[in-house]
Amino acid sequence: MPKIVDHDTRRREIVEASWDVIAGEGLDGLTMRKIAAAASCTTGRLTHYFANREELVLAALRAVYDAAASRMAAIQNADGPPRKRLRGMLEETLPLDDTRLREWKIWIAFWGAAAADRTLAEENDGRHDRWRASILPLIREIAPSSDAAYEAERLVGIVNGLGLEAAISPTSRNRARAREILAKHVECLA
Amino acid sequence: MPKIVDHDTRRREIVEASWDVIAGEGLDGLTMRKIAAAASCTTGRLTHYFANREELVLAALRAVYDAAASRMAAIQNADGPPRKRLRGMLEETLPLDDTRLREWKIWIAFWGAAAADRTLAEENDGRHDRWRASILPLIREIAPSSDAAYEAERLVGIVNGLGLEAAISPTSRNRARAREILAKHVECLA
Repeated sequence: MPKIVDHDTRRREIVEASWDVIAGEGLDGLTMRKIAAAASCTTGRLTHYFANREELVLAALRAVYDAAASRMAAIQNADGPPRKRLRGMLEETLPLDDTRLREWKIWIAFWGAAAADRTLAEENDGRHDRWRASILPLIREIAPSSDAAYEAERLVGIVNGLGLEAAISPTSRNRARAREILAKHVECLA
Repeated sequence: MPKIVDHDTRRREIVEASWDVIAGEGLDGLTMRKIAAAASCTTGRLTHYFANREELVLAALRAVYDAAASRMAAIQNADGPPRKRLRGMLEETLPLDDTRLREWKIWIAFWGAAAADRTLAEENDGRHDRWRASILPLIREIAPSSDAAYEAERLVGIVNGLGLEAAISPTSRNRARAREILAKHVECLA
């Protein structure tokens, strides 16, 4: 019987291996050789899945955004009061546990590179637009007479700013601040 | 007559040369040799001012925070309506022109390093505390019955989040968003 290789699973494993390298050493230290080592394969094997470093870097960035987005979508579509769901969605993008802190370390590494790379910068813009769009329905439900677009822009700003501070210095004080300011802001949304 | 060397001026020139290297290549690419080349001196000369790379990196980070803080203080102490001064102070930390965009590029590079360096992370925490403290008096003047500490935390969050997006992708759309959301938020502060 031939060996069955699940292409998507392997691709996913390689992307996750690259996250470990990026979270640990930043994007500058990311080479195809290091990713191959982290994914326990040869660099030749790696190029079956990703033609070059640029392709893999973009896939890794997209996958980390997708991971947060799919957790947010699950909360959006769950039962419960809209304010609680909105807060829950946004907490998924704060560095409140190890999984989310790793995502933030990857984002921070990407932002350093994106400041000098149009493709990555445009990817970041597009993701932020989708992020804002994803919270619009709950904002409209909670505060029907508000300027929902403004509220979405302000909320994403707050979460990014507080998340950044807590990701750079993940102290309990910085994490509590991020949670509490977000909670109060969402509570007062009208 | 002996040659007069102004120690502080030369130190300042070296720090500014390091900003150019960091803004262009990030912190990973920063070596004493590159800074010496950018400052038109020898690495031997450099060590008269900074014993090692770590000392220079910390001095460069402090100087870029100081530059923004001194512009903010000038606006705080100027004449004019408090809302206008508060907005003006916070605009000094948004990447709305080349000077401020360069500062943001340096901050982003530092944050990448600070996520794995306690000294830099604590420096960042301390600066954010001082930043929040600096806007408290105007918040209290504008909105005496507000929770001023909460408002300062929320405002610094908004400015950091919107500034980050505009620094990664300094499009006119992202810059206008940052200015407009900040202006509306300060206008509604009560």
